[in-house]
Amino acid sequence: MRTIDWVSDADGPAIEIVDQTALPDTTRMLRLRTTAEVVDAIARLAVRGAPALGVAGALGVALAAARDAARAVARDAARAGDAGTAGDGGGAEERLAADVEALRGARPTAVNLARGVDRAAARIPAGPAAVLAEALALRDEEIASSAAMAARGADLVTELVGPAARLLTHCNTGGLATVTGGTALAVVTELHRRGALAGVIASETRPLLQGARLTAWELREAKVPFRVAVDGAGPFLMARGEVDAVILGADRICANGDVVNKVGSYAHALGAARAGIPFLVVAPESTVDDATATGADVPIEDRAAGEVLGFAGHRTTPDGAEAANPAFDVTPHDLVTAIVTDRRVIRPTAR
Amino acid sequence: MRTIDWVSDADGPAIEIVDQTALPDTTRMLRLRTTAEVVDAIARLAVRGAPALGVAGALGVALAAARDAARAVARDAARAGDAGTAGDGGGAEERLAADVEALRGARPTAVNLARGVDRAAARIPAGPAAVLAEALALRDEEIASSAAMAARGADLVTELVGPAARLLTHCNTGGLATVTGGTALAVVTELHRRGALAGVIASETRPLLQGARLTAWELREAKVPFRVAVDGAGPFLMARGEVDAVILGADRICANGDVVNKVGSYAHALGAARAGIPFLVVAPESTVDDATATGADVPIEDRAAGEVLGFAGHRTTPDGAEAANPAFDVTPHDLVTAIVTDRRVIRPTAR
Repeated sequence: MRTIDWVSDADGPAIEIVDQTALPDTTRMLRLRTTAEVVDAIARLAVRGAPALGVAGALGVALAAARDAARAVARDAARAGDAGTAGDGGGAEERLAADVEALRGARPTAVNLARGVDRAAARIPAGPAAVLAEALALRDEEIASSAAMAARGADLVTELVGPAARLLTHCNTGGLATVTGGTALAVVTELHRRGALAGVIASETRPLLQGARLTAWELREAKVPFRVAVDGAGPFLMARGEVDAVILGADRICANGDVVNKVGSYAHALGAARAGIPFLVVAPESTVDDATATGADVPIEDRAAGEVLGFAGHRTTPDGAEAANPAFDVTPHDLVTAIVTDRRVIRPTAR
Repeated sequence: MRTIDWVSDADGPAIEIVDQTALPDTTRMLRLRTTAEVVDAIARLAVRGAPALGVAGALGVALAAARDAARAVARDAARAGDAGTAGDGGGAEERLAADVEALRGARPTAVNLARGVDRAAARIPAGPAAVLAEALALRDEEIASSAAMAARGADLVTELVGPAARLLTHCNTGGLATVTGGTALAVVTELHRRGALAGVIASETRPLLQGARLTAWELREAKVPFRVAVDGAGPFLMARGEVDAVILGADRICANGDVVNKVGSYAHALGAARAGIPFLVVAPESTVDDATATGADVPIEDRAAGEVLGFAGHRTTPDGAEAANPAFDVTPHDLVTAIVTDRRVIRPTAR
């Protein structure tokens, strides 16, 4: 199953996604047909995870370009039929530019989204077919990169902690975060396939519970032995000797090796450093952002208070409560043992 | 309002508690009349917080002793009325000893519970009135100790971070955790009363959300400016400069200054140390356990998986998921700036 793909049906082209807000109870596919629908799906996290967001952005541009071309054809047809009507020949370029901007801005922190959008948008002058070809090429690259990360990451984990690794992961970095396969969770499942994994703890990842809902679902499907823990328990489980290494993904890797990832990652990094165990980041090369010097230069998305003030749709706080809700945090590079990409292993600081 | 107290009504003596599982939606009072009811209320956290648990344990022994005395009176009356029946004169002492053991073991980690039980149980030979007097004395001491901690803690916070403190707290340490007033939250409200508080972040405290449900409720009632944050956000909010000090309670303080407290405390301590801000613990002297050398010597309660796998009856994880659920963690003394008790300020490590 692919988390995101391009389809064509009787209603025209569409982006098909697994609606991640419905998991783990329901596996529901959505077909997105307008820029507004794509932006909405990204904003409410129906599609999420850095690599998948890049593909969503690129396919979103392809969808906008295809619809624009279809509109132009329809307009020309109408004009030919009724020569008296003043045509709306202008505005197409502005509309497409506005769509590109809307897609780019659907979520501010992940570099992959803007990059996927820009890569597809650069082909707009060559026509909608070229835009789509570029977006599909990005999709195929992400699939290949998952496989490369899984193999390289599994080698590194075994080298660092031996042949019966007990890992802790955070958020969701499996196939649902990419097109298929995943990043950090691809390493976990690869280790399991090799018989080199004792088990994994999935940190639940408040406020949206991607660990409890999505990672647990993927681990169960892959028959990997796992336990779920609350986010605050991670550092103590490390101190108690129940974890050999932390392994997670990244939304952006800065030039100095600072890692921007789902809020809660930094706390696990502090726990790993204190326990003296490796803190490993697995992310595609596209996540590496050499144009951003440090984590302090990355805008961190503050999301709506409602996510924090309730739990799985249930309000848990009294009326009138407010929230602090940074969606990401920054792990300083000195806490990062290694970053595994589809091309290399980066060691920001020898430790 | 008192969180826990001793009452007598037409049905006899009872321990009256605020049912904390019903907050923040409903303020429901419960009257507990048997040892089984008291043990159940402690186990399901209807009454919680180290000082309140001590009082609950002591009052639980008083209740058992009073019921035992009432049974003996009834038995004697029955015997007097029907001299032919073989009385059940034996077993009273064993029943009371079993009640004491059940109360002692209702939760294994908090030292206050066992201590409250033992203090009241030591008076059993002197009769039920003496047991009750001892339990009520403990209740009154806890009320006085809250007031002392509030004043001393507020002085220390202002000394360390100035007159507009921005604090972060974890779990619930307000009046609900004690008889009235609280520990760390009593300091927060005292600072607010003095005009020396800019605001406080309440860490939600998964799995049972004591921060989101109880602390937020108490802060709102006290009109203290506050925001709720997920537990994983704490260290990042500190790194981002939004917190001047962390202040929280303790379930047990070891001889070397290691602090056992609600799971998630240790992660905040790591965040505070890295951010270079004070990590302050406020707890009554009764929490100091000089008989336990270090945190490694404290049995940490692992609670049921269901707490982690959902909330308030809502399952968030897929069927078949398991959990790691330590209810407490250990903050090593080198991460603790100061411990404020009702009698003194302890600085485990000069930092």
